[in-house]
Amino acid sequence: MEQNKIQSEPQQTVGIIGLGLIGGSMAIDLKRRGFAARILGVEADCVNASAAEKIGLVDEVVSLEDCIDRSDVIVLAVPVGAAVALLPRILDRLAETQARSKTVLDTCSTKGQIVRCVHYHPLRRRYVATHPMAGTEYSGPWAAQPNLFDSRACIFANAEESDPAAVALAERLYDTLGMRPIYMAADQHDIHTAYVSHISHVTSFALALTVLEKERDEKHIFDLASGGFSSTVRLAKSSPEMWVPILMQNRDNVLHVIDTYLEKMQLFRQAIADYDEAGTDRLIRDANRIKKIIR
Amino acid sequence: MEQNKIQSEPQQTVGIIGLGLIGGSMAIDLKRRGFAARILGVEADCVNASAAEKIGLVDEVVSLEDCIDRSDVIVLAVPVGAAVALLPRILDRLAETQARSKTVLDTCSTKGQIVRCVHYHPLRRRYVATHPMAGTEYSGPWAAQPNLFDSRACIFANAEESDPAAVALAERLYDTLGMRPIYMAADQHDIHTAYVSHISHVTSFALALTVLEKERDEKHIFDLASGGFSSTVRLAKSSPEMWVPILMQNRDNVLHVIDTYLEKMQLFRQAIADYDEAGTDRLIRDANRIKKIIR
Repeated sequence: MEQNKIQSEPQQTVGIIGLGLIGGSMAIDLKRRGFAARILGVEADCVNASAAEKIGLVDEVVSLEDCIDRSDVIVLAVPVGAAVALLPRILDRLAETQARSKTVLDTCSTKGQIVRCVHYHPLRRRYVATHPMAGTEYSGPWAAQPNLFDSRACIFANAEESDPAAVALAERLYDTLGMRPIYMAADQHDIHTAYVSHISHVTSFALALTVLEKERDEKHIFDLASGGFSSTVRLAKSSPEMWVPILMQNRDNVLHVIDTYLEKMQLFRQAIADYDEAGTDRLIRDANRIKKIIR
Repeated sequence: MEQNKIQSEPQQTVGIIGLGLIGGSMAIDLKRRGFAARILGVEADCVNASAAEKIGLVDEVVSLEDCIDRSDVIVLAVPVGAAVALLPRILDRLAETQARSKTVLDTCSTKGQIVRCVHYHPLRRRYVATHPMAGTEYSGPWAAQPNLFDSRACIFANAEESDPAAVALAERLYDTLGMRPIYMAADQHDIHTAYVSHISHVTSFALALTVLEKERDEKHIFDLASGGFSSTVRLAKSSPEMWVPILMQNRDNVLHVIDTYLEKMQLFRQAIADYDEAGTDRLIRDANRIKKIIR
């Protein structure tokens, strides 16, 4: 199967802008699985750039313009704030250089703002808005790993606004990464991810702050931390570079989910404050229905 | 080393009251590692009792009285509400039967109420209040597993109120399970666990309720759930049988931590609502200090 892909796309050069966890992990598997004959990388941070080259994530670190000009597929894998600034520049460059058959993808965790920012761009149809739903709480080229995307979902947002050939190429790319495609509207995506990803990060950050504050007085409090605590607070290691722009871009949805969540917390608070055993029992039993969803 | 333990405590019978995750897992390793020559089990739920016997967790399922009379060490591993009701009865039985050299342990997640309920009992000193800090979100005899306690912490609460010989026996028991002992006051324990365990469960329950509510309208919302979400919501599978009494017994501490946590959530909410990038960045960076604690 990998052989087939090498034959069908033999000379393909993939340019990856942003060599962090997502860009770096894509680079590994796209090369290893024969989708890319050559990988060019762009990385603004020079420490990361040098690391990415030394680790061997990419064949060459180049300038943004070089990457756009020399790649057949361009993957934008930077934090969402930077992505919204870069995507129009990339499409502009394609227009200037008459490179109207190249495909541009992004990997951002919010989709509404990025699709809006190029909605009227003459080369909008060369851009495919995608969100590969994989990751860890670590970042940078050192966090890159093989098989990161295997069997996870990849969202295609507003795919009807893209050229079918560009979408097909993106589908082959994510198929190579072992991902299953899900198609939805960008705004729908942002609502969903507010519930199943963004809120988890906010609650985890808040939990970390709560316990760290207590640690100032009680130095040994973490001696008692159990596996359950670690699992709940793990996401609090996630970087502000990635998460500030996500929370800003998805502000309205995130606020709505935070408010719903705070209502649920208040239900628990009240039931506990009232020594309401039956009420607390009901709330927990209700929450236990999550068993049908996650193993 | 296991050989040594067999030699030093060759005929020891351990009675375990409550054959769930904790009691069942203890039974496996105490037998396998030679601490117990024989394990007697007490289990109120007859389905669980029959399962525990069939799985082979215990040598024999017996009545509470039989267990007390025939065991050298009695481990009370039931939810904290039931434990507070049972512990005085167990000590009463020791007094009635003149069995003043037996040792009784509990494994409860809250310690203040249980130590208070037998504070003036004539056989108080035969009881050692302990909390082996290990577990999973599953319950019942089917959840029991070998090596559950290895390298985790075991709290000894108010150890000075117990007979040194009883404490020493409890120390050998937990040493056999591979646990490191930590000594503290019962009330201190309850404050600490409110921070590093109980709050995580409440936030996880509330998160599950939030997303499950949305799922009523958006059937496919969980298609997008990432590993991060699963990790944050995992504890929401925990049983009400265990958690209602913990939250009730540790009400004051849990409420205090919930309130601190809600303040942190409000800081995030406000920073996001205000599009305050610098403020959100500071909060996340602050939360990132959790990295020094958990890997």
